[in-house]
Amino acid sequence: MHAYRTHHCGALRASDAGQTARLSGWVHRKRDHGGLLFIDLRDHYGLTQCVFPAGSEVFASADAIRPESVITVTGEVVAREPGTVNDKLPTGAIELRVRALEVQSHADVLPIQVAGEQEFPEDLRLRYRFLDLRREKQHRNIMLRAGVIASIRRRMIEQGFTEFQTPILTASSPEGARDFLVPSRNHPGTFYALPQAPQQFKQLAMVAGFDRYFQIAPCFRDEASRADRSPGEFYQLDFEMSFVTQEDVFAAIEPVMEGIFNEFGGGRKVTPAPFPRIPYDTAMLEYGSDKPDLRNPLKITDVTEHFRDSGFGLFSKVVAGGGIVRAIPAPGAAGNPRGFFDKLNEWARAEGAGGLGYIQFAAEGPKGPIAKNLEAERVEAIRSACDLQPGDAVFFAAGKKDETPKFAGKVRTKLGEELGLIEQGEFRFCWIVDFPMYELNEETGQVDFSHNPFSMPQGGLEALNTMDPLEIKAFQYDIVCNGIELSSGAIRNHRPDIMIRAFEIAGYTEQTVEERFGGMLAAFRYGAPPHGGSAPGIDRMVMLLADEPNIREVILFPLNQQGQDLMMGAPAAVEPARLKELSIKLDLPPAKGAAAPKAP
Amino acid sequence: MHAYRTHHCGALRASDAGQTARLSGWVHRKRDHGGLLFIDLRDHYGLTQCVFPAGSEVFASADAIRPESVITVTGEVVAREPGTVNDKLPTGAIELRVRALEVQSHADVLPIQVAGEQEFPEDLRLRYRFLDLRREKQHRNIMLRAGVIASIRRRMIEQGFTEFQTPILTASSPEGARDFLVPSRNHPGTFYALPQAPQQFKQLAMVAGFDRYFQIAPCFRDEASRADRSPGEFYQLDFEMSFVTQEDVFAAIEPVMEGIFNEFGGGRKVTPAPFPRIPYDTAMLEYGSDKPDLRNPLKITDVTEHFRDSGFGLFSKVVAGGGIVRAIPAPGAAGNPRGFFDKLNEWARAEGAGGLGYIQFAAEGPKGPIAKNLEAERVEAIRSACDLQPGDAVFFAAGKKDETPKFAGKVRTKLGEELGLIEQGEFRFCWIVDFPMYELNEETGQVDFSHNPFSMPQGGLEALNTMDPLEIKAFQYDIVCNGIELSSGAIRNHRPDIMIRAFEIAGYTEQTVEERFGGMLAAFRYGAPPHGGSAPGIDRMVMLLADEPNIREVILFPLNQQGQDLMMGAPAAVEPARLKELSIKLDLPPAKGAAAPKAP
Repeated sequence: MHAYRTHHCGALRASDAGQTARLSGWVHRKRDHGGLLFIDLRDHYGLTQCVFPAGSEVFASADAIRPESVITVTGEVVAREPGTVNDKLPTGAIELRVRALEVQSHADVLPIQVAGEQEFPEDLRLRYRFLDLRREKQHRNIMLRAGVIASIRRRMIEQGFTEFQTPILTASSPEGARDFLVPSRNHPGTFYALPQAPQQFKQLAMVAGFDRYFQIAPCFRDEASRADRSPGEFYQLDFEMSFVTQEDVFAAIEPVMEGIFNEFGGGRKVTPAPFPRIPYDTAMLEYGSDKPDLRNPLKITDVTEHFRDSGFGLFSKVVAGGGIVRAIPAPGAAGNPRGFFDKLNEWARAEGAGGLGYIQFAAEGPKGPIAKNLEAERVEAIRSACDLQPGDAVFFAAGKKDETPKFAGKVRTKLGEELGLIEQGEFRFCWIVDFPMYELNEETGQVDFSHNPFSMPQGGLEALNTMDPLEIKAFQYDIVCNGIELSSGAIRNHRPDIMIRAFEIAGYTEQTVEERFGGMLAAFRYGAPPHGGSAPGIDRMVMLLADEPNIREVILFPLNQQGQDLMMGAPAAVEPARLKELSIKLDLPPAKGAAAPKAP
Repeated sequence: MHAYRTHHCGALRASDAGQTARLSGWVHRKRDHGGLLFIDLRDHYGLTQCVFPAGSEVFASADAIRPESVITVTGEVVAREPGTVNDKLPTGAIELRVRALEVQSHADVLPIQVAGEQEFPEDLRLRYRFLDLRREKQHRNIMLRAGVIASIRRRMIEQGFTEFQTPILTASSPEGARDFLVPSRNHPGTFYALPQAPQQFKQLAMVAGFDRYFQIAPCFRDEASRADRSPGEFYQLDFEMSFVTQEDVFAAIEPVMEGIFNEFGGGRKVTPAPFPRIPYDTAMLEYGSDKPDLRNPLKITDVTEHFRDSGFGLFSKVVAGGGIVRAIPAPGAAGNPRGFFDKLNEWARAEGAGGLGYIQFAAEGPKGPIAKNLEAERVEAIRSACDLQPGDAVFFAAGKKDETPKFAGKVRTKLGEELGLIEQGEFRFCWIVDFPMYELNEETGQVDFSHNPFSMPQGGLEALNTMDPLEIKAFQYDIVCNGIELSSGAIRNHRPDIMIRAFEIAGYTEQTVEERFGGMLAAFRYGAPPHGGSAPGIDRMVMLLADEPNIREVILFPLNQQGQDLMMGAPAAVEPARLKELSIKLDLPPAKGAAAPKAP
């Protein structure tokens, strides 16, 4: 017989009754039932009930061990009495009558409990992460993550992609977030950087002639943590393709995303490919966001013209001053009590808006302060433009051109929630496309890149040379699910001439471009294919699938919000000799009451 | 028609003749054949011959572009004339008669050529790695690596393993090689370390109740580079299993290794599982190495007793002084000319040995200086012990007990090579098992750990308490292929009581153990399963399969031997402001004529 087990703790069934079996695992729960001692033995695969009869040799030792000790038990598989069968447990038809017990590892008194649903402070959980991970939900989340990643790999390979590992000790990025630095021992005074993303490497892989690259890529940013962003490291499904149009990129990745969300979504409905493509301008108008949550059925309408020179003076003045008015429908809300409208107005003021105008299209006719002042045909025109029925209401966001669309988007979200319109149990995907290449910097009056300067402008060099920069769109796109941006992507600008011109428009000289991005430009001068890709965030995908708002719940050994590994004790002070070797020394900020770190 | 291609460059066949096709790729070779211009167009998938007829509109543009420019060509697929079919090329039955040409990217004059077999200096190749990788062998090596890793993942998952990502920003290791350090911005004066291996994390994953972990794990060591070790980062197939014996570990990984080497070995013979298990003592005796190359059929025999008090005074004295004599057979070498034996003696002296004794078992009887002085029955006993036939010779390594076995191993290798006995085109695997737990430090007279202090001693606590430490074996094992150690592994010591006792024997107090390894000990006190694993090196496996002695040939974007990324320019100086943020400053060694690095 095997030293530790003949079966996993999830394996035994009624048909095994009569067999001798050996199991190993953790003491999950102990119950003393009048002379019989029950232990639920747990391993990675499941739970099995083990029985220690009173007076048996093994009873005393079993009685003495603490929960979470690791034991090996040998005994007879016995069918449970009909009344005691547990249908919820795959092994619930049997129990193991233990004849021999070996303790592999005694557990001390636990700082956090494994069995049960008790909540513990996050720092305690992270300090004892090896205990925390034994709990059912945590174990399930990590297995979900592993399953998602393995499935992504399988699906990407099926789509003809090849996974490569790009360097982790590399050069500082020319742009973007803050790098982590790694002092070089052999080259005093110099530093490696950890990659914020393998962006340059994947583009160089395309220039090197590999056609379809992907990587479950570790990325590193020295940025403040957020609920959906780990401090330090995170993973993305980094991919890139050569000789492709934007639609080719979408066609390659959509089946992967749809497949993953169908496979791991637990029956939740998933947008079938092809996902809707929504131009950036449309998204900003209809959803007030470039990350629209399509589970919310509400769409925003521009009603600026309906208020121009109208009887509703407040909005009339806004429009006359160059502002805009957006209408957000509130289906079925016409009959809501006054308090509903007042509460939304309060919320709007808390959000920094002047308030929210509204019209109630009651059965007996339009109601409310705006309807009183606005010409009846204009009220009707608005009703018609917003496709409202009797019983519906409509809210208005009015103000400056640049702020109002986004605020209308907030109102849309708020109304969706208040009216219970957000469809639950769905994953709604879309692409946001046609991002503007440039935007006007209101402060400087200069044209700036609005998103990624390395995307290919639509229309190429000719567009750059002939069009109003603010009218030029880029081959740049975001993939969004349930209002969460999973990734940006682009068809890259692979032409040095177009890149230099694009930067020139944004106020950079050719010399500056060569100085800052010379590496990529040099590579593009030896034959570069048109290429593009994206990099959906793995952690965010798993958060959506696990329905976890906290990213640390889907990472095996996460850093805490302060970027500390409480279990391993990182970051930590190091011996001065180690720093000397690296040709650096500490340069601590003036003490703020806190003592300087001591060398170990 | 697609903007870039209807087919890959490896796709078109005779059956496509008559179709219009569009291809995109790199200009691999250009040939001007009396009015016709031929371009071999290359992409990731293959080569297609494209023809530009003289006088055609496209001829002039095609004529003007340099090799490695990227072009898109459209034209008619034409069956080649029977005499011009190229059987070596999958597309060799057709050519593309080009009607339209679009240049996607012009190539400058190349620093290294892509077509052809010309060799270039490594630093030039690494600086232009994106060009170097376009070459056939380099492209093939990287695709091989990707294929091996994808197949390993598939096979590990089939064996019931789950891949997890362990942290890359973590704590300094208590033991082992030098860590790379990463200064923490938010915790001034402290540092993260990059993991030398996920050893502690994988053991904690077992303590956390995950049963079979693996990871294609990036590992980091700030060590000097060697041919088979990258400076900086490398990858290993890190795996760990719970509730297993040593044989369970072997049984889990052997089918993966055998499968990989069969799949990618190009028909080379692979040791079928189960691989031979060779105890460490046997390996040191018979192969003079704990990394035996089993393609070499020679086995060493101990012949110390045959020389004790014998007529061959030199060895007799060695034995009397506590030394040993090892015999290495040289099949069929008896008739070799004197020069053969003299050359080997010269080699031995160059290796630091006194020389190499030998006996030639000629047809007419034993010959040579030793045979002259050694008693005939002893000569015959040696012949019999080494299983030698007439026509064979035998060499002797004599000397101190600790040095001689290894030198005999070198002689074995040398003879295997000189006599052409190393079987080519085979992958010969074995496990080396039963490593000694301790060894005697000759200098201090103290007992030291001989390999990994965290392995479980065979016999557990009882062995530690009752046996001579130098007799205790560990559950530790190496997997070796063709004389290359792919990995060490062990059944781990998961019992704090056994660990403290094991360290006590090696001279460490309980307090020291708690101070240095407190993290793992703490985890083991909350219920730890028996567990073990290993971590075969991915780079080494691919080097074996690609038959490449240089590790940089199997890495996409490798650092050079000095740990520099010549393409991206890493490591590099950083702005003083960045260092200030990290609470460090430079502490450069006194200049040795070299200027201090300048900030960018």
